Amino acid sequence: MKVIKNVRSVRDFSRKAKKLGKTIGFVPTMGYLHEGHLSLVRHARKKCDIVVVSIFVNPIQFGPKEDFKKYPRDIKRDRKMLSSMGVDVLFAPTVKEVFKGDFSTTVEVKGLSDRLCGASRLGHFAGVTTIVSKLFNMVEPDVAFFGRKDFQQLVIIKKMVEDLNMGIDIVGLPTVREKDGLAKSSRNKYLSPAERRSAAGLNKSLRLAGNLVKRGVKDSRKLIGEMKRLISTYRPKIVIDYIAVCDPKTLEHKKTVAGSTLIALAAYIGRARLIDNILVGGKK
Amino acid sequence: MKVIKNVRSVRDFSRKAKKLGKTIGFVPTMGYLHEGHLSLVRHARKKCDIVVVSIFVNPIQFGPKEDFKKYPRDIKRDRKMLSSMGVDVLFAPTVKEVFKGDFSTTVEVKGLSDRLCGASRLGHFAGVTTIVSKLFNMVEPDVAFFGRKDFQQLVIIKKMVEDLNMGIDIVGLPTVREKDGLAKSSRNKYLSPAERRSAAGLNKSLRLAGNLVKRGVKDSRKLIGEMKRLISTYRPKIVIDYIAVCDPKTLEHKKTVAGSTLIALAAYIGRARLIDNILVGGKK
Repeated sequence: MKVIKNVRSVRDFSRKAKKLGKTIGFVPTMGYLHEGHLSLVRHARKKCDIVVVSIFVNPIQFGPKEDFKKYPRDIKRDRKMLSSMGVDVLFAPTVKEVFKGDFSTTVEVKGLSDRLCGASRLGHFAGVTTIVSKLFNMVEPDVAFFGRKDFQQLVIIKKMVEDLNMGIDIVGLPTVREKDGLAKSSRNKYLSPAERRSAAGLNKSLRLAGNLVKRGVKDSRKLIGEMKRLISTYRPKIVIDYIAVCDPKTLEHKKTVAGSTLIALAAYIGRARLIDNILVGGKK
Repeated sequence: MKVIKNVRSVRDFSRKAKKLGKTIGFVPTMGYLHEGHLSLVRHARKKCDIVVVSIFVNPIQFGPKEDFKKYPRDIKRDRKMLSSMGVDVLFAPTVKEVFKGDFSTTVEVKGLSDRLCGASRLGHFAGVTTIVSKLFNMVEPDVAFFGRKDFQQLVIIKKMVEDLNMGIDIVGLPTVREKDGLAKSSRNKYLSPAERRSAAGLNKSLRLAGNLVKRGVKDSRKLIGEMKRLISTYRPKIVIDYIAVCDPKTLEHKKTVAGSTLIALAAYIGRARLIDNILVGGKK
């Protein structure tokens, strides 16, 4: 596995490979890899000739009071994992290499970026779409892989790629979970053992909503009410940021579940802000 | 010359050419071509294996009260000109092909886009950077050519390409002028014969400033004053939008000419809004 730290080299590598007719699969990450990331890498390995994984903790997608500095990092461990999986290139640039001089360009998907997580994390998704644009321009992949845990991010990136004619296939893959249902996340590291047990309540509440929908409950307010009731029983306390029942494409709120519907939530447990979601009401 | 109307075909063409090791030069235009455009095409023809010219009057860079609908168009004439110059591809998509569905993504260079023309044309440069991003993603050129008449546009596009790591060479080429100095522009068509004569005052005022600088006048206010005085003598009247003495990279106002300095102006003559600029105070 090649480890590349600068933009020019990764682009050169990519352009050479393309001239040889190879397809390039790209998995952008912030590192501290878990099974969720590895599942993306595995898919990329299956689908593409060349697999590039980036590790870059992107400062511009963190708010001033958020966890940029504390975000967990372990590049040595990540490197070993990726190397053993047959990744061709680990692209791990420094912040200085990525943001040079008086950086002042923003790529933004309006509307979609203001909802759900966007409402509590102002500017977050502009930070995401800007860095993903940059990484796409550096790596020039044919296909890029993202997890469905960050459902809103996936929807926004798909929209950006379509709107800006990026000519890249965006593949979304299922959330990987712990045995008790908790979505794998680098931020789970922030949880104490007790908080970790409590965190299972998030996915439990989503599965409860899924079961209620199957049993005919369609009213969003009722579903959210039941989820809140369940979540309130967990200790240490889960502090809900939002629970939303919405259209999986536009992310607009739905009053009732009709057709494929996204139920998404964000909540604080201790210092960790965690997210999860479920699709309900669809045909299969 | 191939005439291509849809995004997929132009990208396919481009990717095939690249796999054969060809370099692609790109000249994005809004059509109604004049010598300024043709000079860009000629340079592209000299520097690159394949030359792609786009003609697309981009609605999102016009304000609601601006001249989108009236903007001059003559695709037949343009087509003949380009074909006779050995252009490989004319890419001329419809507005529907370019802006599909609920388009909602913006690429924006903050700061640079708010100054000079950006102050009187709110959102104009965001419209420019968004469409140029799209066209770059469609055509995937190695080099793109822009005229220096639109100096601010050139600065902003260079900054965007750098900030977003687009991996495209941006080449700026000198303004092509009429005999009396008026910068060639599709919008000159709006001028009546009398207005056309008056329009010479714009470039005259810039050359006056250039000569004053050579003779040791460095104070921006003084220079702008002299330019205004000269412009005020022209009939039909020239209505100045702005005259700015500024840094050619940051576009920030300079109180005195020291080192390479941009003097830029915009003015209305009849219904035409015209722009022009000159670099002064540099070493050569």
